[in-house]
Amino acid sequence: MTTIAFVGLGIMGSPMACHLARAGHDVVGHNRSPEKTAALVEAGGRAAGSVAEAVRGADVVALMLPDSPDVTDVLTGEDGVFAHAAPGTLIIDFSTIRPDVARDLSATAAERGFRMVDAPVSGGEAGAVNAALSIMVGGGKDDVAAARPYLDTVGKTVVHVGPSGAGQTVKAANQLIVAGNIALLAEALVFLEAHGADLPAAVEVLGGGLAGSAVLNQKAPKMLDREYSPGFRIDLHHKDMGIVTSAAREAGVATPVGALVAQLVAATRAAGDGGLDHSALHRTIARLSGRASGPSPRDES
Amino acid sequence: MTTIAFVGLGIMGSPMACHLARAGHDVVGHNRSPEKTAALVEAGGRAAGSVAEAVRGADVVALMLPDSPDVTDVLTGEDGVFAHAAPGTLIIDFSTIRPDVARDLSATAAERGFRMVDAPVSGGEAGAVNAALSIMVGGGKDDVAAARPYLDTVGKTVVHVGPSGAGQTVKAANQLIVAGNIALLAEALVFLEAHGADLPAAVEVLGGGLAGSAVLNQKAPKMLDREYSPGFRIDLHHKDMGIVTSAAREAGVATPVGALVAQLVAATRAAGDGGLDHSALHRTIARLSGRASGPSPRDES
Amino acid sequence: MTTIAFVGLGIMGSPMACHLARAGHDVVGHNRSPEKTAALVEAGGRAAGSVAEAVRGADVVALMLPDSPDVTDVLTGEDGVFAHAAPGTLIIDFSTIRPDVARDLSATAAERGFRMVDAPVSGGEAGAVNAALSIMVGGGKDDVAAARPYLDTVGKTVVHVGPSGAGQTVKAANQLIVAGNIALLAEALVFLEAHGADLPAAVEVLGGGLAGSAVLNQKAPKMLDREYSPGFRIDLHHKDMGIVTSAAREAGVATPVGALVAQLVAATRAAGDGGLDHSALHRTIARLSGRASGPSPRDES
Amino acid sequence: MTTIAFVGLGIMGSPMACHLARAGHDVVGHNRSPEKTAALVEAGGRAAGSVAEAVRGADVVALMLPDSPDVTDVLTGEDGVFAHAAPGTLIIDFSTIRPDVARDLSATAAERGFRMVDAPVSGGEAGAVNAALSIMVGGGKDDVAAARPYLDTVGKTVVHVGPSGAGQTVKAANQLIVAGNIALLAEALVFLEAHGADLPAAVEVLGGGLAGSAVLNQKAPKMLDREYSPGFRIDLHHKDMGIVTSAAREAGVATPVGALVAQLVAATRAAGDGGLDHSALHRTIARLSGRASGPSPRDES
Repeated sequence: MTTIAFVGLGIMGSPMACHLARAGHDVVGHNRSPEKTAALVEAGGRAAGSVAEAVRGADVVALMLPDSPDVTDVLTGEDGVFAHAAPGTLIIDFSTIRPDVARDLSATAAERGFRMVDAPVSGGEAGAVNAALSIMVGGGKDDVAAARPYLDTVGKTVVHVGPSGAGQTVKAANQLIVAGNIALLAEALVFLEAHGADLPAAVEVLGGGLAGSAVLNQKAPKMLDREYSPGFRIDLHHKDMGIVTSAAREAGVATPVGALVAQLVAATRAAGDGGLDHSALHRTIARLSGRASGPSPRDES
Repeated sequence: MTTIAFVGLGIMGSPMACHLARAGHDVVGHNRSPEKTAALVEAGGRAAGSVAEAVRGADVVALMLPDSPDVTDVLTGEDGVFAHAAPGTLIIDFSTIRPDVARDLSATAAERGFRMVDAPVSGGEAGAVNAALSIMVGGGKDDVAAARPYLDTVGKTVVHVGPSGAGQTVKAANQLIVAGNIALLAEALVFLEAHGADLPAAVEVLGGGLAGSAVLNQKAPKMLDREYSPGFRIDLHHKDMGIVTSAAREAGVATPVGALVAQLVAATRAAGDGGLDHSALHRTIARLSGRASGPSPRDES
Repeated sequence: MTTIAFVGLGIMGSPMACHLARAGHDVVGHNRSPEKTAALVEAGGRAAGSVAEAVRGADVVALMLPDSPDVTDVLTGEDGVFAHAAPGTLIIDFSTIRPDVARDLSATAAERGFRMVDAPVSGGEAGAVNAALSIMVGGGKDDVAAARPYLDTVGKTVVHVGPSGAGQTVKAANQLIVAGNIALLAEALVFLEAHGADLPAAVEVLGGGLAGSAVLNQKAPKMLDREYSPGFRIDLHHKDMGIVTSAAREAGVATPVGALVAQLVAATRAAGDGGLDHSALHRTIARLSGRASGPSPRDES
Repeated sequence: MTTIAFVGLGIMGSPMACHLARAGHDVVGHNRSPEKTAALVEAGGRAAGSVAEAVRGADVVALMLPDSPDVTDVLTGEDGVFAHAAPGTLIIDFSTIRPDVARDLSATAAERGFRMVDAPVSGGEAGAVNAALSIMVGGGKDDVAAARPYLDTVGKTVVHVGPSGAGQTVKAANQLIVAGNIALLAEALVFLEAHGADLPAAVEVLGGGLAGSAVLNQKAPKMLDREYSPGFRIDLHHKDMGIVTSAAREAGVATPVGALVAQLVAATRAAGDGGLDHSALHRTIARLSGRASGPSPRDES
C-alpha cells in the first residue's frame, strides 16, 4: 500500500483519485473547494485541508490542475509540495500545461531531490470514470517505471513518449488534432445541411471510410442534436490551443491549419460559448454561414 | 444473371468489375487503354472496343471515371450511353464528380428514359480489392433499391444519403475531412519531431484517445517512413478539393479550414508531388518549417 | 468623331459612356433596363433598344457588364455583337470577368475578324464619375493603341499589362489585394477597439507609416462610423474572389491568405450583408469576436 | 537644453539620438556594443559606459531596444534606470514590446516616482534617418505633452492614441496590417507571374487604385528584383507577430487572417530567411507555388 497525495479533485481528478483508493492505496485528497473531497472519502480515501497536510508522509504526489500557474503554485508555493513533501517523493502531474513549464518544474524538482513525470491524459470524463484514459508520459526511464502502476490503475493506453515535458508536447499535438478534426467535421456537416443531404445517413457512411474518427463518433451526434453540454469545455481547449501556439513557436515550426483552428476556438469563446463542449465549434462554423445552430446559452437565461 | 456494362477499368474500376463478374453477372468492360480489360476477362467477363458496344444489350451501366468531363462525355457523346443503351437501363456512376454535374446528368438521363444513381466510393484501392468500399448513394428510392445488389457486391457500408447528387455531396464532405485530417496529422508530427518526441510512441498514444482516426492509422506510418507511394494521388485530391470549393460556394457556406487545406494540397502539387499519395501533404508541412522530408520524386530522377 | 456602342449603363457604365459622349463621340447606349439610358441621352448620346441596333454602324463597341456569362451572351448571342457588328470593329470590354473567358472570347473575336481588348477598371463609382479610373489593359499592341484614346477619356492610370486576358488577371490580383487589405484593417480595428485604444487617433498614425493604404484612407472611416453603404458591393467582390480562386487554380499557384479572405467574404454574404459595401467585412470580423457592429440591414426591415 | 540619456544605439536608435543632439540637447548615449556610440559622439553627444552612468543627471531617458525582456532589464536591473535615475525623470520608450509589459513597467515607474510614455515608431531606417517616423504614443496627457518636443524632433506623424500601453497596442495593429499586406502583395505577384503578366506594368496600375499602399510602393520593387536586404528583418517581424497573437488572445478577439500571416512569417524564418527584409515573405509564397525566388542566403554561403 502506497500513500498517495492527490491535489485537484475536479471532474477528472475525483474519479482518478477514487480508482487509486479502490485499488487499495491510502489516498489523501486536497481540493481548493473542500466539498469536492466527498467522493474520495466515500471511496475510502481521506481529505486534507491544505497541500502541505496532504503531502506530508506521502510516497507519491499526484496533481490534476487546470493550468500552468496552478501547477507552479502547488509545487513551488510556501504551502506547496517542494516545501513539505519528503525528498525522494514521486510527483505525477496529470495536468495539461505548457511543455516548457513542465520541463522547468521537473528540473527544479530534481534539484530538490524529487522525482517527477508529466502524465497528461486524453479521454475526457468518461475515460476518467471508466479508468480508460490514454496517458502520454514524459520523464526519465526509472521514474516512469516507478509511476507506471499508478498510471495503469487510471489509464488504458499508457505510453512513455520521451523525457520530461514530452508528455505535454504530445498532449499539445493531441489537442491540435482534436480541435482541427472537430472544426472540419463542423464544416462538413454545415456544408451537407446546406445541400439538403440526409445528415444521419451521411455520418454513417463517412464513419465507414477514411473520414472515420473518434471525433466523428463522439461529436457528430452532439452536432446533429445541437446538444453541446460538456464534455470538454471550449474554455479549456482555448487554453490548450494557446499552449500549442506557443510550443510551436518555441520549436520554430509553422502550423497554419492549427493556427486558424485556434482562432475559431477563440471566436467560439468570444461568442459566449466558452462553457459549452468543444463540439460547439459547430455553432461558430454555422454562424459563419448564416445558419442558426440552436439556442445560445446566453439566450436561455 | 444481369448484363452489366462497366466503363473505366482503372485501379479502382478493374477490381470492382471483377467482383461483379465473380458474383455471376455477365460483365462487359470497356477502357480507353484496352489492355486494362485483361483482369476482367480472366475473372470471366468480356471486353468491348467502344462504349457503344459495351452498353448495347446491358441491363446496368456502371461508370468509374476520373472527372466530371469524362462522365459527361461517356454519357452524352456520340458513341455514348444515352445514344446506345436501351431505355430503362440503370446507370450507376461510381466516379467522384461535381454534385451539380451529377444532378444535371441525372435529370437528362430521366428525360431520356434512363434511371441513374450517383454512387461515389471511399476506401481506396484496398477497399476496391476487398469489396469493402463505403458507398454514398444519391438518387430516387426505387432506383437506389434497384442498384443495391450491385453496390453490396463491391461495398461494405452502402448508405442512401439523399436525391440525385447527394452521393457526390457527401463524397465532397468526405474529401474535405480526409484532406484536413491528413494536414493536421502532418502538423502534429512535424511539431512533435521538432520537439524531439518519440514519434512511434506518440502515434500509439494519440491513436488511443480522441485524436484517433482512420487517417492516423493509415497515414501516420507512411509519414514516419517518408514513404508516400500511392494510394490516392495528390492530383486527384486536388481535383476533389476543387469540387469541395465550388460546391461550398454554390451552397453559400463558408469553409475556412477546408479552403486553407485546399491551398496546401495545391502547394503539394505545385512542388511536383502530385503523383504521390495524399499523405505527401506531410512534405509540404515539413518544408514550411524548414525541415527536409525525404527525397523529392523529382530529385530521384 | 467615332461612333461608339456602349452596352451596360449601370452605376459604372453610365458615367463612362457620358464622358465619351461629352468628349465628342457619337455614343449609342443600350441597357437591359431601358430607363438607364436617360443620363447618356442628356449628355448628347443616343439610346438603342437592342444590342444589335446599338452595334450596327459602330466603330467601337464598349461593354460594362456584371459577369462572364453576361459578356459571353452579349458577344456571341443571336442579337449579339459578333452577329451584327461590322468586321474590324474594335471591342473594349471594361467588365471584370474570368481571364480564361476573356482569352477565349478574344480568340473567337479574332477568328471572326474583330479586334478586342480587355480593360477592367479600378476606382469605383467615384473613379467613373471623375474619369479617374485605373485601367488594366490586355490585348495586342496595335489594338491597345487603337483603344487608348477612349481609355484615356475615362481613366487616369491606363497601363498595358500583357496579351488578351492579362487585364483580367491583373484585375483579379487587384481584388485579391483589396479584399485582403480590408480584412486586415477590420481585424486591426476590432483588436484596437477591444483594447480600448482611441480609434480615430490610431487610424491617423497608422496612415502615416508603412500600414498606410488607399483601403485605410477610404474604408477606415466607414468602419468607424459603422456606415457600410455601397460603394462596391460584397456580392460583386464575392464574384471576383471566385475568379481569383479559379484563376489561381488554373495557374497552379497557392494563395493561402487569399483563400481565407475569400471565405470571409463568403461569410459576409451568407450573413445577409451581400448588398453592403465590401468594408462590411468589418461586420464579419467583429461578429467573430463577439462584438456587435451596428444594425444588420436585415434588422432594419 | 535638456540632458537626455539614450539607451540602445542600433540601426534605429543611433540616428534618432543624433537628431536629438543636433537639436541642441545634451545627449548621453549607451549601447551594449560600445563602438555604436561613435555616430552620436560625432553629432555632438557623449558616450556612457553603463546605463547607470548614462541616466545619472538626465532629465529624460529614451530607450530603443529589441524586445520586452531588454526593456525590463534596462529599467528594473541593478544597473538600471529605476535604481539610478532621479525621481521625476521622464522615460520615453521607443521600443516595440508587449502592451501588457508596457503597462506593467509604466505602473512600476509611477510607483517609484517616474513618468513614462510608450512611443513605438513606424517608418524603418529611412524614417529614423530622415526624422520622418510615425510615432504612436501611449501615456497620461501631461506626460505625453512633456515628451512631445522630443518626439517631434525624431518623428513626422506623432499621435497620442491612449493611456499607457496604447502605443504598443497600435504598433501591434500596425505590424499586423503590414505583414498581411506584404503577404497579399506576394501572393498577387506570384499569381501574376504564373499567368505571364507584365509585372512592372501591373505594379504601376495596381498602385493607382484601391490596391495602392505604402507596402506596394516600398516592397514591390524588392520582390520584383528578388532583393531582400533589410530593411526590417523577418526575425523582428516574427517577434512582433508573437506580440500581436498574445495581445489578441488577451483581448479575447479572433484575428484569423493575422494568425495565418503569422505562420507564414514563422515559415519564412524556419526556411533560414530570418535575417532578410520582411519582403522575403515573397520567397515563402513563391516556394509554396513551386517557384524559385532567387538564391537563398544559405545557398550563398
